[in-house]
Amino acid sequence: MPLRLALAQIRSQVGDIDGNVERVLDAWRRAADLGADLVVFTELTTTGYPPEDLLLKPEFLRANLDAVRRLATEGPHGTVALVGYVGTEEDDLVADDPADHTGWEVASAAGVSLTNSAAVLADGAVVATYDKFRLPNYGVFDEARYFTPRDEPLVVRVAGVPVGVTICEDLWLEPGPVGRAAQAGAKLVANLNASPYHRGKHAEREDWARRHVRRDGTWLAYVNVVGGQDDVVFDGDSFLLGPDGEVTARGAQFAEDLVVVDVPVETAEVTAACDLDGHTGDRPVLAGQQAAERLDPVGEVWHALVLATRDYCHRNGFEEAIIGLSGGIDSAVVAAVAADALGGEHVLGVAMPSPYSSQHSLDDAESLAKNFGSPYHVLQIEEPMAAVGRVLGDLVVTGFGEQRGDDREAGVAYENIQARLRGVLVMALSNERGSIVLTTGNKSEYAVGYATLYGDMAGGFAPLKDVPKLLVYELARWRNAQGDGELVPVNTIEKAPSAELRPDQRDDDSLPPYEILDDIIEGYVERDLGLRALVERGHDEATVRRVVQLVDRAEYKRRQAAPGPKVTCRAFGRERRVPMTNDWQG
Amino acid sequence: MPLRLALAQIRSQVGDIDGNVERVLDAWRRAADLGADLVVFTELTTTGYPPEDLLLKPEFLRANLDAVRRLATEGPHGTVALVGYVGTEEDDLVADDPADHTGWEVASAAGVSLTNSAAVLADGAVVATYDKFRLPNYGVFDEARYFTPRDEPLVVRVAGVPVGVTICEDLWLEPGPVGRAAQAGAKLVANLNASPYHRGKHAEREDWARRHVRRDGTWLAYVNVVGGQDDVVFDGDSFLLGPDGEVTARGAQFAEDLVVVDVPVETAEVTAACDLDGHTGDRPVLAGQQAAERLDPVGEVWHALVLATRDYCHRNGFEEAIIGLSGGIDSAVVAAVAADALGGEHVLGVAMPSPYSSQHSLDDAESLAKNFGSPYHVLQIEEPMAAVGRVLGDLVVTGFGEQRGDDREAGVAYENIQARLRGVLVMALSNERGSIVLTTGNKSEYAVGYATLYGDMAGGFAPLKDVPKLLVYELARWRNAQGDGELVPVNTIEKAPSAELRPDQRDDDSLPPYEILDDIIEGYVERDLGLRALVERGHDEATVRRVVQLVDRAEYKRRQAAPGPKVTCRAFGRERRVPMTNDWQG
Repeated sequence: MPLRLALAQIRSQVGDIDGNVERVLDAWRRAADLGADLVVFTELTTTGYPPEDLLLKPEFLRANLDAVRRLATEGPHGTVALVGYVGTEEDDLVADDPADHTGWEVASAAGVSLTNSAAVLADGAVVATYDKFRLPNYGVFDEARYFTPRDEPLVVRVAGVPVGVTICEDLWLEPGPVGRAAQAGAKLVANLNASPYHRGKHAEREDWARRHVRRDGTWLAYVNVVGGQDDVVFDGDSFLLGPDGEVTARGAQFAEDLVVVDVPVETAEVTAACDLDGHTGDRPVLAGQQAAERLDPVGEVWHALVLATRDYCHRNGFEEAIIGLSGGIDSAVVAAVAADALGGEHVLGVAMPSPYSSQHSLDDAESLAKNFGSPYHVLQIEEPMAAVGRVLGDLVVTGFGEQRGDDREAGVAYENIQARLRGVLVMALSNERGSIVLTTGNKSEYAVGYATLYGDMAGGFAPLKDVPKLLVYELARWRNAQGDGELVPVNTIEKAPSAELRPDQRDDDSLPPYEILDDIIEGYVERDLGLRALVERGHDEATVRRVVQLVDRAEYKRRQAAPGPKVTCRAFGRERRVPMTNDWQG
Repeated sequence: MPLRLALAQIRSQVGDIDGNVERVLDAWRRAADLGADLVVFTELTTTGYPPEDLLLKPEFLRANLDAVRRLATEGPHGTVALVGYVGTEEDDLVADDPADHTGWEVASAAGVSLTNSAAVLADGAVVATYDKFRLPNYGVFDEARYFTPRDEPLVVRVAGVPVGVTICEDLWLEPGPVGRAAQAGAKLVANLNASPYHRGKHAEREDWARRHVRRDGTWLAYVNVVGGQDDVVFDGDSFLLGPDGEVTARGAQFAEDLVVVDVPVETAEVTAACDLDGHTGDRPVLAGQQAAERLDPVGEVWHALVLATRDYCHRNGFEEAIIGLSGGIDSAVVAAVAADALGGEHVLGVAMPSPYSSQHSLDDAESLAKNFGSPYHVLQIEEPMAAVGRVLGDLVVTGFGEQRGDDREAGVAYENIQARLRGVLVMALSNERGSIVLTTGNKSEYAVGYATLYGDMAGGFAPLKDVPKLLVYELARWRNAQGDGELVPVNTIEKAPSAELRPDQRDDDSLPPYEILDDIIEGYVERDLGLRALVERGHDEATVRRVVQLVDRAEYKRRQAAPGPKVTCRAFGRERRVPMTNDWQG
């Protein structure tokens, strides 16, 4: 008889321990009703991922242990569950849990020794635990700040099948813990994940998994959490691999899912931590699951942005988003993402024209709002600009020429006053309505600092923060091809980008074309290429030097930027930690 | 003959590899001129500390290795130098450097294996290297993100004295690498540091050092770097401990120093990595060094703020700071710090009264500027407030009652418009003059979110970010007692604090008294006390709940705050990493 396996791709939320218990129990019961022998959950299921410095709070750790005990007690019998939690020194969940903490010589923040662990829950008890071995401490990950690694494979027998338990990064090492589980006799390796999305990451995960199953002849169940959490988004996209390396089942992308499948994995007599019956009695015939259609590379990003935006807004108590609509491509795409995330009626579009704004921009902004069914207001900033100019008087000489009757040219101070007055207006609406402002900058702008602190950077979440400009265009076209009309006005997509902070301004007056800019940024920011390597990539040296200098200098702005979801292999923010005060160039 | 030892407490700057080479050579030559046998520098001398993700750049790593080679070549002969640098796998500085990287199971960001190392430079060559064992990865530290630990003591003989080499956190473990160096025969242990300041940290360092020397009967030379680096400040404050645990020499606090001292440490025949002559020939008689007077606990903080502010401003190219002066205590102390850091004439004070500002506030602001010899402007915000109110019209109903002839009460939107228009004005001056805006918020305000994003939070550096309100008062009084007059107006210190955003507003209308607030914040933020523990500390439960909730909710604001120097044992920012989206309370 095959093993009936459930991949429980749930939405485990950071800090919501009680809610996570409910989510586990719900999925577990559904899996039990379907006759599953084993249900596999995600990494740190109880606490959500990443819990960060909540892990330093003793009461939080205790609540997490209580949650595991409660799950063991309340979960359905018969179906074995693998659940992620935080292990601690005082962890007496299982009587003879080994407590060997030697060999770890990084000074950790936690006073106690913590582990990133999985509990095996069966028939009312915690019957075994596993502690993660490979702790990622690069990119967005800080696991060495909290956890101690252990190097002890765990194999439990479920309905006769030896099942190895591993956690996330354990997979990304060869042979590593997955290989050791197989050596210890596992025929199916379960891998519990909280793996943040970025473009193309799915293939990397599958490649790693494939190496293991082909080497060891095992099955591998990869289960990933779903949801947005501050600056990362988890895409679910769980899968089951057979020993031939073929995917035989899949979870949805960017949505909760419970995949139940019969796995023709062999049973074996091996030394196991425990021997569990699994489901007994009748079990229903499984409906043939239709594998969800895979998203294309741009659609994947769209869904990542929508989920990240929805979760950030809703989980922080915001139903409505306010967006400054310029008529340009960035604010249009942010509004479209927000409309898909929150409903168009919960997106408040605000156009804030200055004397330099063109009529076509206003028209495009209005069409966009109309297309998504969003309320829309026009607030003229000319009068506040003049009032601020009068207050500043001679202290700011650049830009108030018209008011003061002289002919000096507008400078950066004047441009920024426009952007910042817009910030004042959207934030006033935010305070008044209890709504969140979404900022509209894209990764290319954040990279070179072409954004005004406290101006267009003002807001609570930045959906496009990790989206390079050229990809913003692709997203607009992708959305317009979804069959519900050309919602992003074609004119917005086709016109030359401009900040409209002075007459006839265009982005490419002062920046290289985005084809060049985005490639340099990708090389410099995402791949740590130096000046020489960037020039070897085919770019003009002066351009490279200029862009690199702009990127370095703008770090102080990015430190004050709103969070936004990671979608590339290196996002600004927690994933790229560079000093502001820094004399190194390149 | 005693060993002549130099503690080279230099200013090593992040990313300034060439400059750091010059600083080392300068101090080394001065030490050689004074006949020193050994000069001890600081941790990661070549790169500055913390280099963060610059460590992922291959060209940066190569430049760092070149710097060590250049130092070896150009340094004076006779005087042995210990210099911190980044070791890499391809590091062929010393021919038979062991390359054993096993046993490390944290997945690191760097593609190569890096070490936090010290080089022994003598007579034109790198003669030995040591790799740090204990890598801090808590608080502000991320060393496991970059480095591999090694557990191999290094003892070199200098003028017959066995000298053990250790790096920073190696000290904070018993017996640890310091003990192992002594076991390997060291009579003097050198400890190279980049140890960020916080209040009372000096005693902790000395206590650790004392344990080692008393246990092992050795001498210990603790050498720490000096300077501000983004959100930490290094205080120097190097010291030499004798085997009895007494401090026999000390470096300055918050200033560069080269301490040269004759150490009556015994020579010994031990197995050492190398045997170096040290200084040969005549050496001058050392002038009796006058130990610098120790700063008192408040003066220590003052100097930390001044150094941090000066370095942030100057290293980022700013000569002048702009400060919004409200007449209140926070902006007064920030202005005083800035005046001490940059010179009073480089501080531009700007009062921006609204209709709710009192005349005494304006008077106090003006006196303060005058006392520090700072230029001062008054910019009335009433007219821009009215203009913004007219633009918002019916969209913001709270607060524009007067203009619109109704009697609805001013709300948070209206209050924030005032703060944000002030942000617009100071930032316009910043853009126009190329000056930095210093924000004036203190730790108590950042904690509970009593600060306006893009308003009073607008600026490049936040000197008081980690200074609780009660300590702000102590700082003002301390500065007034320095003998150059009561520069901070007494009225500013004595009046009840108010944001003056509506008539007769006082901080304690909506917050508990600062005696209570600061204590709860200290317990919750710096010590991870939960609700129960805070109540047990003697606080009212409802007050505790309210404060804790305010702190949790304000995390999103702090993520967009300017950097400011750490002066307590846990600062906001990189030292306290908590999720914004988080359902856990307490």
